[in-house]
Amino acid sequence: MKALICHCRNYSSEVTRLSDTPIGIVPEAISEGLLIANDAIVALVTVERGDNIDIVVPRLATEVRKMCRDTRHRRVILLPFAHLSGDLADPDTSLTIIQRLADILCDLQPTRAHFGSDKKLLLDIYGHKGSVRFRQF
Amino acid sequence: MKALICHCRNYSSEVTRLSDTPIGIVPEAISEGLLIANDAIVALVTVERGDNIDIVVPRLATEVRKMCRDTRHRRVILLPFAHLSGDLADPDTSLTIIQRLADILCDLQPTRAHFGSDKKLLLDIYGHKGSVRFRQF
Repeated sequence: MKALICHCRNYSSEVTRLSDTPIGIVPEAISEGLLIANDAIVALVTVERGDNIDIVVPRLATEVRKMCRDTRHRRVILLPFAHLSGDLADPDTSLTIIQRLADILCDLQPTRAHFGSDKKLLLDIYGHKGSVRFRQF
Repeated sequence: MKALICHCRNYSSEVTRLSDTPIGIVPEAISEGLLIANDAIVALVTVERGDNIDIVVPRLATEVRKMCRDTRHRRVILLPFAHLSGDLADPDTSLTIIQRLADILCDLQPTRAHFGSDKKLLLDIYGHKGSVRFRQF
């Protein structure tokens, strides 16, 4: 698993089309194609082949919580993002792991962006030290 | 080397402070702390330990040129970005490699963002297929 955790002044994403790659992907139904948030902790998450859900999910959750504490914000966006690795997990596994991440962060009421789509994406990231954090597990 | 190449409707970056990590970093002098661009190809570039300049630079340059052709835009921003890998090259090597990349793309007159600083960063990315491309060499 690889992740970029960003402290964003503004965030938005809007589904523009459903993905047809990688092979086998079954995009979710779109319940909310447009997401907008301010002062948000945005985790771009790439699930990799071989990731152990019982290891990577708690570790990333810990890092998200730490970013929330450090910035004193608790609006969390979880963005499935297939662009931090060249060794992706299969789509079913990726979705399962990202959903588990959302579940164990439920006290923060995170918003999970749509899985299985191309999106317009706005990341307006603060410039303080530690506003962007790369993590791999 | 790892890179994210993004087709951005809007891009801006603004230096907020000079970096003091990793150890040994010598930030450049700031000639232009604020960059703004529209319809730009933005390459976020992370140089890794062991990267061979004669291999990684031409390969990434080829990918940047391909993105320019595919999108029919030729405004290129090269952004040193230490957040795509946990195995970074030393700062001197990173700067040398990123500058070489700028040099061999000189016909496109790329803008290289400041090396060695925290920055506010705005990435407003289009939602078409292939608007974000991850590459590793």
